[in-house]
Amino acid sequence: MTNAFPPNQQFRLAARPLGMPRNEDWLFHEEAVGEPIDGGIVVKVLYLSLDPAMRGWMNEGKSYIRPVAIGEVMRAGGLGIVIASKSPRFAMGDYVVGGTGVQRYWSGPADDKTAAFTKIDPRLAPLTAWLNTLGMPGMTAFFGLREVGQPKAGETVVVSGAAGAVGMTVGQVAKKMGCRVVGIAGGEDKCRYVVEQLGFDACIDYKAGPVHAGLKEHCPQGVDVYFDNVGGDILDAVLTRINMKARIVICGAISQYNATSQVKGPANYLSLLVNRARMEGMVVFDYAPRYAEGVATLAGWMQEGSVKSHEHVTEGFERFPEALLMLFEGKNLGKLVLKVADA
Amino acid sequence: MTNAFPPNQQFRLAARPLGMPRNEDWLFHEEAVGEPIDGGIVVKVLYLSLDPAMRGWMNEGKSYIRPVAIGEVMRAGGLGIVIASKSPRFAMGDYVVGGTGVQRYWSGPADDKTAAFTKIDPRLAPLTAWLNTLGMPGMTAFFGLREVGQPKAGETVVVSGAAGAVGMTVGQVAKKMGCRVVGIAGGEDKCRYVVEQLGFDACIDYKAGPVHAGLKEHCPQGVDVYFDNVGGDILDAVLTRINMKARIVICGAISQYNATSQVKGPANYLSLLVNRARMEGMVVFDYAPRYAEGVATLAGWMQEGSVKSHEHVTEGFERFPEALLMLFEGKNLGKLVLKVADA
Repeated sequence: MTNAFPPNQQFRLAARPLGMPRNEDWLFHEEAVGEPIDGGIVVKVLYLSLDPAMRGWMNEGKSYIRPVAIGEVMRAGGLGIVIASKSPRFAMGDYVVGGTGVQRYWSGPADDKTAAFTKIDPRLAPLTAWLNTLGMPGMTAFFGLREVGQPKAGETVVVSGAAGAVGMTVGQVAKKMGCRVVGIAGGEDKCRYVVEQLGFDACIDYKAGPVHAGLKEHCPQGVDVYFDNVGGDILDAVLTRINMKARIVICGAISQYNATSQVKGPANYLSLLVNRARMEGMVVFDYAPRYAEGVATLAGWMQEGSVKSHEHVTEGFERFPEALLMLFEGKNLGKLVLKVADA
Repeated sequence: MTNAFPPNQQFRLAARPLGMPRNEDWLFHEEAVGEPIDGGIVVKVLYLSLDPAMRGWMNEGKSYIRPVAIGEVMRAGGLGIVIASKSPRFAMGDYVVGGTGVQRYWSGPADDKTAAFTKIDPRLAPLTAWLNTLGMPGMTAFFGLREVGQPKAGETVVVSGAAGAVGMTVGQVAKKMGCRVVGIAGGEDKCRYVVEQLGFDACIDYKAGPVHAGLKEHCPQGVDVYFDNVGGDILDAVLTRINMKARIVICGAISQYNATSQVKGPANYLSLLVNRARMEGMVVFDYAPRYAEGVATLAGWMQEGSVKSHEHVTEGFERFPEALLMLFEGKNLGKLVLKVADA
């Protein structure tokens, strides 16, 4: 029997990086893709989601999810098309999102728990939006802001990584909730984008001057909710400007993910005491039973044009190692996705 | 008219300390005590409350309460007896607690908002307990643990500064709530005291070895609630052992109050993210409308013998500067009070 598929290509984890991942930390691997097993499917990956969290999965040690093992295909979310199916759950031509890993083809049981494929409706939104506003970043923003941040109309919401996938949606959802929204991002272009295109009230360019001064200027009523994607000095600056009973959502800390020395803890954390404020962590997976609600709401807002989904598409599967670094170099505007193939 | 009172003595703030307060930061001042004004009282101070928070009040800058001004009598809670009254609210011989400041006599309007005197019933508990379990430390422990920490029966509660005023009550209240209680304190004597005399399940001596190892041994089910009085490395150690949805009550950070460099922020704060946990500040004053409830509950427990109030009484008004330092040197067991005079 001849094999109907071209060879699969994968990036496997070769070594645990110290600091920024290097090319030597990856193993480029080729292997054949077999026909699907009984109850199985083969998915051709079209887009891979590149996420800051991937850096954490490369480290050893307990976290909210087990680390990627040495020699294992790197974990990643992806969007693909079913090109072979021996499962009643999926038909050829179905578009799916799930944990494809960093490879061109995924093959296995249709109900694989790790991949956790779900079928998407490509008519509802552009394909790449399913890895962004209608995918994990969107769900993170939607549930993290609403359930943990709990902003009320009229309050001031600050979000860091404002021009990143999660931050963009946080700000737009907060505007829909009647809040004053101030972003923090690196560079004039990013700041201009979130204000002019996404309707943020203001955006502080942390590369242009002290964040503290920007907060003073743009948050004259103080900060009620801070949605933190970056950690480090920016978290510390916001802590000096929070209001009584403020809520800080700890969603990520991209500034610290490649730290080779100890993570910088928030030196101003005693502002929590003074202001009877709280800092709370969130992980999007906890809201999995409610993703349908998040997708429906955000898709509705996208269709009426009041929320935008912006993806930064970079091309070429073999460029994965350098594409991932774009996140940590702040090179992406919006959700960074790697285009792997045409449908 | 002759003055019926001996001269008042006061410690006033002479300079804002850098690091540990020195003698030169205090001004010892004598002045006459006048007869009470109309509607006024004179209170003879018997005991002064020495609190870690006092160090913060000596600093410049916005906090939950305004700083003590240079030249002003140092702020302190005290217990005294009314020795002259032209107010219907208090009679000669009444025992009162309130913001007397660091002085031998307080004189002013009976309804002074800053002093906020309340009459206490000396039959309900020993006098010094009114500055401890039935005073601010007790209220801090009672409301901070129950309202912010929200422990459930069967959960593990860890408290630092376990042999201090707040920590002792936190642990005892947590035991009453059906929790496993593990203290952290400095020295064998303190640890033995809270286990043997107060019924803690265990106590980790942070001077004897790494706190992390102690937590591993004594909190086999992890940490659900951490009541933090100390900050610094101990907060960081506990962060590595918290459970999902853990609650960290930020009540104080005595390890950092005399820091001359920047406060050490909790480097392991991303454990909040991994564990969907929260860290929340509390200030006891917010619960003022409910103090009566706290006093009644704790006094009841004291009377039935299930909660103990332990005060460390040091004597001599003129020794105030060195007595205050005992807090930061960890020399006190239980609530540190300075005995100023006999009734």
